[in-house]
Amino acid sequence: MSGAGKPIGVGRLIGVGTGPGDPELLTVKAVRALGEAEVVAYFAKAGRSGNGRAVVEGLIRPGTQELPLYYPVTTEIDKDDEAYKRQITDFYNSSAEVVAEHLQAGRTVAILSEGDPLFYGSYMHLHVRLAGRFPVEVIPGITAMSGCWSLAGLPLVQGDDVLSVLPGTMGEGELQRRLADTEAAVIMKVGRNLPKIRRALAAAGRLGAAVYVERGTMKNAAMIPLSDKPDDAAPYFSLVLVPGWKGRPAQNDSVREVRA
Amino acid sequence: MSGAGKPIGVGRLIGVGTGPGDPELLTVKAVRALGEAEVVAYFAKAGRSGNGRAVVEGLIRPGTQELPLYYPVTTEIDKDDEAYKRQITDFYNSSAEVVAEHLQAGRTVAILSEGDPLFYGSYMHLHVRLAGRFPVEVIPGITAMSGCWSLAGLPLVQGDDVLSVLPGTMGEGELQRRLADTEAAVIMKVGRNLPKIRRALAAAGRLGAAVYVERGTMKNAAMIPLSDKPDDAAPYFSLVLVPGWKGRPAQNDSVREVRA
Ligand SMILES: C[S@@+](CC[C@H](N)C(=O)[O-])C[C@H]1O[C@@H](n2cnc3c(N)ncnc32)[C@H](O)[C@@H]1O
Ligand SMILES: C[S@@+](CC[C@H](N)C(=O)[O-])C[C@H]1O[C@@H](n2cnc3c(N)ncnc32)[C@H](O)[C@@H]1O
Repeated sequence: MSGAGKPIGVGRLIGVGTGPGDPELLTVKAVRALGEAEVVAYFAKAGRSGNGRAVVEGLIRPGTQELPLYYPVTTEIDKDDEAYKRQITDFYNSSAEVVAEHLQAGRTVAILSEGDPLFYGSYMHLHVRLAGRFPVEVIPGITAMSGCWSLAGLPLVQGDDVLSVLPGTMGEGELQRRLADTEAAVIMKVGRNLPKIRRALAAAGRLGAAVYVERGTMKNAAMIPLSDKPDDAAPYFSLVLVPGWKGRPAQNDSVREVRA
Repeated sequence: MSGAGKPIGVGRLIGVGTGPGDPELLTVKAVRALGEAEVVAYFAKAGRSGNGRAVVEGLIRPGTQELPLYYPVTTEIDKDDEAYKRQITDFYNSSAEVVAEHLQAGRTVAILSEGDPLFYGSYMHLHVRLAGRFPVEVIPGITAMSGCWSLAGLPLVQGDDVLSVLPGTMGEGELQRRLADTEAAVIMKVGRNLPKIRRALAAAGRLGAAVYVERGTMKNAAMIPLSDKPDDAAPYFSLVLVPGWKGRPAQNDSVREVRA
């Protein structure tokens, strides 16, 4: 629990979930927080404005200070590399300090987070560095997976179903094992892992039910049963849904391809 | 994908996620849909108004037709009993037909669903019966688990973590096995399963990190590290969170008890 021992005159940190992409999927609470914030911070790639920022266009008061936090430009893409790890840790440390200065000056700082802040979000790296020092509120967001299964109209879990949320980055054998041992699954971080994900689903006997969704709830959203997808191209914003609820009554609709 | 072959003059069905309890956690889209609906339907226990209905108080236009769907009163509580199964199936069938009549008459019907509609929601029973026959839109909602971990300020999953969502209704051995085989877990449907859940967590070596949250984001919300909870009383609206992200930097705050 955060907010204990709030020093007088210190600002408030708000982690704001911005949902899967459709600006109407922000909560009423998130909209209010953005309107009240004095500083709005967000992670972005150098030279880009950041997807989280785009979603809240029009919700930030004129005059609000914007604080883009640019990821370090790395030529090294192996995330297990020690030099990369040090660079990214330094970046989170220094970003937290920049935010801390605003809080110390008494300003309310909202940090944007795509989807839900505490569910695989970059916001978490600032949260753990600041939550013990400043009053913090986290406003939950619609997760990418909720946005995607709602868009697809796909009942995901019911009754006693187990849901496994699996990062597509894991090893193929491990992915297969877990897919064979769950009623429903969501595979996040698809991108270039798609060929591996496809093989693991097939080996686990789950490929037939899998649905691929990209840019769910964004303007250029698309989805298709994974076994019908002719290629292995997948953008960063993509995931795979494997629905549970085996005993459900027969439904005479099914997921059809929708193109951007 | 729903909405294919929409007959002219037929109404639209909208599954509306109402979130974990705090009315401010409805999305902007859900608020708009409720303001536009001609009929607002919701499940409720006989003699009660239903929790989903309470959350949207003030968001429904005057003159909107309300359609409470009362669960059959059962003396038999064993959900595997055949007579009970038949009774509940009949109830979902007849509820779907009542909604279908409104849709056939051209009315827009919003069905309230606590949390997210397609995530263990009762709405799903109507969805599968109606989605093939009428145009349907599902508006995602903040899940109970997102509401609870945000309230607790508890980073749940990061990086390559696996998240397992486990119904507290499952067998003790199975629960223990799955808790020992995942980075993070959410245990839903706690209620009278709490003693069993506690034992499974202890046997899996995960009790120390578990956090119990009841009525998360509602007015009388409460939370406590599960190992500090002195009794096994748990209301319907309660769940247990087991956070992942082992490699996270040390954080100098932690979940404290909060009483209603
Ligand atoms: C770092 S995680 C962030 C998850 C986010 N915090 C949430 O609550 O869903 C990024 C992953 O989320 C998924 N994702 C995010 N937005 C998406 C969208 N609109 N459609 C499909 N997948 C999306 C992709 O799998 C992507 O690799
Ligand atoms: C039938 S499921 C509905 C889940 C819902 N559709 C969602 O998206 O979270 C009901 C279970 O959700 C959990 N739950 C719902 N609201 C809650 C709240 N405000 N606090 C804690 N648990 C809650 C409890 O575990 C309860 O047994």
